[in-house]
Amino acid sequence: MSKAKVGVIGYGTIGMRLADGVDLQEDMDLVGVVDVAPTLGVRALHEAGMAYDLYLVDMARQPQFDDLGIPVSGSMDDLLDQIDVALDATPGGIGAKNKELYKKHGVKAIFQGGEKNEVADVFFHGYANYEKGLGQSFLKLTSCNTTGLIRAVDAIDRLVGVEKIAITIVRRVADPGDTHRGLTNVLMVDKVPNHQAVDLMTIMPHVEATGFLVHTPVTHGHIISIVATPKQSIDKATLLDAFREHPRIRVFRIADGFSSNAALFKYARDLGNKRGDMYEIGTWEECIGFSGKDVLFAINIPQEAVTIPETVDGIRAAMEMQTDRLEAVGLTNRYLGMKAGR
Amino acid sequence: MSKAKVGVIGYGTIGMRLADGVDLQEDMDLVGVVDVAPTLGVRALHEAGMAYDLYLVDMARQPQFDDLGIPVSGSMDDLLDQIDVALDATPGGIGAKNKELYKKHGVKAIFQGGEKNEVADVFFHGYANYEKGLGQSFLKLTSCNTTGLIRAVDAIDRLVGVEKIAITIVRRVADPGDTHRGLTNVLMVDKVPNHQAVDLMTIMPHVEATGFLVHTPVTHGHIISIVATPKQSIDKATLLDAFREHPRIRVFRIADGFSSNAALFKYARDLGNKRGDMYEIGTWEECIGFSGKDVLFAINIPQEAVTIPETVDGIRAAMEMQTDRLEAVGLTNRYLGMKAGR
Amino acid sequence: MSKAKVGVIGYGTIGMRLADGVDLQEDMDLVGVVDVAPTLGVRALHEAGMAYDLYLVDMARQPQFDDLGIPVSGSMDDLLDQIDVALDATPGGIGAKNKELYKKHGVKAIFQGGEKNEVADVFFHGYANYEKGLGQSFLKLTSCNTTGLIRAVDAIDRLVGVEKIAITIVRRVADPGDTHRGLTNVLMVDKVPNHQAVDLMTIMPHVEATGFLVHTPVTHGHIISIVATPKQSIDKATLLDAFREHPRIRVFRIADGFSSNAALFKYARDLGNKRGDMYEIGTWEECIGFSGKDVLFAINIPQEAVTIPETVDGIRAAMEMQTDRLEAVGLTNRYLGMKAGR
Amino acid sequence: MSKAKVGVIGYGTIGMRLADGVDLQEDMDLVGVVDVAPTLGVRALHEAGMAYDLYLVDMARQPQFDDLGIPVSGSMDDLLDQIDVALDATPGGIGAKNKELYKKHGVKAIFQGGEKNEVADVFFHGYANYEKGLGQSFLKLTSCNTTGLIRAVDAIDRLVGVEKIAITIVRRVADPGDTHRGLTNVLMVDKVPNHQAVDLMTIMPHVEATGFLVHTPVTHGHIISIVATPKQSIDKATLLDAFREHPRIRVFRIADGFSSNAALFKYARDLGNKRGDMYEIGTWEECIGFSGKDVLFAINIPQEAVTIPETVDGIRAAMEMQTDRLEAVGLTNRYLGMKAGR
Repeated sequence: MSKAKVGVIGYGTIGMRLADGVDLQEDMDLVGVVDVAPTLGVRALHEAGMAYDLYLVDMARQPQFDDLGIPVSGSMDDLLDQIDVALDATPGGIGAKNKELYKKHGVKAIFQGGEKNEVADVFFHGYANYEKGLGQSFLKLTSCNTTGLIRAVDAIDRLVGVEKIAITIVRRVADPGDTHRGLTNVLMVDKVPNHQAVDLMTIMPHVEATGFLVHTPVTHGHIISIVATPKQSIDKATLLDAFREHPRIRVFRIADGFSSNAALFKYARDLGNKRGDMYEIGTWEECIGFSGKDVLFAINIPQEAVTIPETVDGIRAAMEMQTDRLEAVGLTNRYLGMKAGR
Repeated sequence: MSKAKVGVIGYGTIGMRLADGVDLQEDMDLVGVVDVAPTLGVRALHEAGMAYDLYLVDMARQPQFDDLGIPVSGSMDDLLDQIDVALDATPGGIGAKNKELYKKHGVKAIFQGGEKNEVADVFFHGYANYEKGLGQSFLKLTSCNTTGLIRAVDAIDRLVGVEKIAITIVRRVADPGDTHRGLTNVLMVDKVPNHQAVDLMTIMPHVEATGFLVHTPVTHGHIISIVATPKQSIDKATLLDAFREHPRIRVFRIADGFSSNAALFKYARDLGNKRGDMYEIGTWEECIGFSGKDVLFAINIPQEAVTIPETVDGIRAAMEMQTDRLEAVGLTNRYLGMKAGR
Repeated sequence: MSKAKVGVIGYGTIGMRLADGVDLQEDMDLVGVVDVAPTLGVRALHEAGMAYDLYLVDMARQPQFDDLGIPVSGSMDDLLDQIDVALDATPGGIGAKNKELYKKHGVKAIFQGGEKNEVADVFFHGYANYEKGLGQSFLKLTSCNTTGLIRAVDAIDRLVGVEKIAITIVRRVADPGDTHRGLTNVLMVDKVPNHQAVDLMTIMPHVEATGFLVHTPVTHGHIISIVATPKQSIDKATLLDAFREHPRIRVFRIADGFSSNAALFKYARDLGNKRGDMYEIGTWEECIGFSGKDVLFAINIPQEAVTIPETVDGIRAAMEMQTDRLEAVGLTNRYLGMKAGR
Repeated sequence: MSKAKVGVIGYGTIGMRLADGVDLQEDMDLVGVVDVAPTLGVRALHEAGMAYDLYLVDMARQPQFDDLGIPVSGSMDDLLDQIDVALDATPGGIGAKNKELYKKHGVKAIFQGGEKNEVADVFFHGYANYEKGLGQSFLKLTSCNTTGLIRAVDAIDRLVGVEKIAITIVRRVADPGDTHRGLTNVLMVDKVPNHQAVDLMTIMPHVEATGFLVHTPVTHGHIISIVATPKQSIDKATLLDAFREHPRIRVFRIADGFSSNAALFKYARDLGNKRGDMYEIGTWEECIGFSGKDVLFAINIPQEAVTIPETVDGIRAAMEMQTDRLEAVGLTNRYLGMKAGR
């Protein structure tokens, strides 16, 4: 089978990681990335040796790139002529505009969580509803929190069924390096239910969900506390086994030093992972409790990288590279270096 | 009836507020406060005019106070000879040692949450188990989070009954001005269940509880997310009414600008409250949701001041000043300026 | 002499403190304050008993205030008809528009640092150039950092002369409660020279100045490090004496526990100061050093309250209430409770 | 010439980076690393494939490593028998104790900044006093701030001479992942002069120095503001040229997006640098100013990695691998991938 030809539109925090992730897939071909200006990310791409070909939204700005010695491979249109699937990682709202371009060029597209649901044919999660994405032209990924949340809830749901959940999201407010957003010495609250609970119900309509969200002044990962009412009772050992067997969930122990979202970031840096990234959500062995039949547990969402695997799954679904859910996610996992038992 | 004679042992963050709170009670007499060194708090007491008489743990240190012109009224023993009740607000562990002194002087004592439960005859909360404190010699208050949590859960429990709860505490890690503790860009997690859930079950043994806690790098109030399973269903309006009618709970609206723990602190400063304090816990009209019969809501705990009212209630119970719970808390509320309907 | 009639336009962080500060001046009459919406500050004014009469920018919004039971005394025009001086504490840029109204009503005005210099006849600092403000119609105050900086530099300049300075501003990025601005885990740098150095040269043209500024994720006070080259050498004791004798400068000791900007905020709260405010800049006994003839020292700027005294001085100058600089600032100091020797 | 045999004692934040840095030197052989417990760093070493052999301080703890499947190559004594130079990156105070072991095994050692100066024969900086380290047995590196500071000051000193400096250190208080230290919403000040100014004078005794330090609640790099009085005047272009030609200094532009310490960290991550590290200090084109003859500029210190190059220089000096300063630092730079012109 010929490789799927993929382009990344928007080389920001998510876009650069999508490029890295697709580049690792042996059955995909990353044709190039698109951006609009010589951002820090584009400058780093250049200084590190142009691992990916760069295309421009607006060729009128090419002289600015020429001055910096950054090679330009062509326009966004040039890229769209060469690819099967566009991974749209532009700021919220731009994707909807780009959709017209994708249609014009006959290119499928996968949008990130910042776009409105209407932009896509299907609201997609690789593990939870892979089948719905099969052959579709326009997919929209769940947001970073929702993607990680659904991984965990779907794992329990496939095991014992989940009746309802109530979640509390302790949200990191900015990414490392952000200066355009931030909070200082503030815990800011949002309306209940948060969009993550609502979105989960769209993907998993048989689960009732509500949620509360607090924005906190940190940068290294959201933490979600989940109170789930399973259909059948589940004990701690069984739950931990389910998480350990899930290639996109890692189980950590506070006692080993993994006591915070920042400890997980440090660990990923020390592993030598590119950009210090982690694709897996984390959970803690010591952070599981019960109140009646309900189970309480917590997960860590590495917001910069967590949606990469499910987006790659989306390529597999849209291009019908695999029709079987587990075969598809299994390939994504293998190429990204994720495996069960960690 | 003669006034209850009260002394405050330990003039730190809690102790200075206990002194302020007792001083406002028209049926109590604050005889003095005790400390060990000319801390910032003691210096402020002096510069502002010695509103309270100061006694020393160790008279050998009096010269240090003399040099600063800070008047000393005597030793801790001198104070204990004059009072009926000691409010012990010393660092955790010191209270247990002080208990021998209290016994020797025939003085009742109320300890704060930092002491072990064994130090006291009863683990006390003014609203939830006032009757248990009646006539007791040694009470221990619940911690700041538990005190605020029980206010809210007790309010629901008395209305429709509470079967179980699962809580998530988004904990402020330090008080304004602290440099001896703190976190920087970290969300640190604790073992499940947290002590607050366990402590609640001690005070309200008919409720099943578990909880997760995340330490966050902020200073202006804990936020607790509570998933409660009531015995009878409750709707949003009824819950809000119960909170509005509770003199120690205030209902805020995000839409009005009360969008964070820090907004509540700012509001208390702008009200002209001493030290910018707020005795009431806060809750948000927009932060209530349902998942099946379960209700999800959130409260704000102003950690520096929240235990003051329940500690004053403790004086009333220990001294049997009022035998009726509502009469007792009502007097405390009136003198502290708290009332229903806010 | 009849009292100066003063109005405050804009009841935000600065405006509410200007109202408090003017209200304490026995030779001034605070006629009222103006705002546009029922902000948290206006709600606090109401809940605390309407210490000041409230006027509205837009009377069409009165129903919103009526619904909340907040009494409205009239329109901004109504207020302007009654006052001699308007203290404009509106967001940057609004003041320039308001100036036309002030002219129309024949009212003098004092603008805060957020407005452009062109809005005013004179760029004013009570201690450094009081005489220039005498009888002027439109003054502009220096910003919070510049106001505090000039206090200290002017004190040295009047003693031994100052040839040049180079400053480093470690800037708090937001006020307590702010959610519309903030930084998270970032030290953000600004271009050299910063506007504070440039502004100082406008007020003190005989001093050469440059400066660097770093935005830091804290809320309780800027810290400025100053390297000053005096015309005559100065030693540490003389410098400390000059600071101690200045009623708007306090000297603290790290050894006593005053080790941070937040410790000073805590101290002001514990003093019982309204809103936990401090009018004085702070300096530290242990934070003075020398490199050749240059002296290095540091000051703390309580950003919410520091410009209040100099703004009140501005009223005295504009209204020619006192023609002598020291007499004027002395009265301001006395009514605000500031005095030498602390 | 045979390769220098090097061991790293203490596999923490600095130690792991020393191992990485030595491993890149083609004329050095990293024999192994030593640690005491299966820390996060050791676990990451294991999960990533044991790039370095691990030796234990205490062989009695080997079973703990065996249980985790982490291979142990022997004891610290076993390692010391095989190496020429030990890079001691243990917590402050431990190095002094280890020195006896190094002597016993006839091994040279290089200590980090946390040890007292007395532990070493020479207080060392690769660029500033390389010659003093030649053939010495015990070197001590300057701390992270001092190392970066001296790079910049030495560069100016070799160009036009430096008479005196006054510095302000805006210090990051913790590393990413730290929970054992931290500050929350506090700017904490230290005594003047700070140790960095004093240490600089030890290495560069002809320069007079003083300095002030503020601890800030961030994790991604210290920022130092430097006011330097050069012996001969220097202009901005000349200074920038000197910095650009220095392989361990990079010049950034705020206008390009490099507006903070965190932006530099983000850039290093996006470059694909291991652990997101940067060996170079950064400076900003827009952050240079003049006050008379004095020049004001600012540098960024990537605290986790900045001392690695100078420590590697120390191996070259102690082992007399190169006697020429520029030849030595040039080799270190080449192997670490640093070069002029950035």
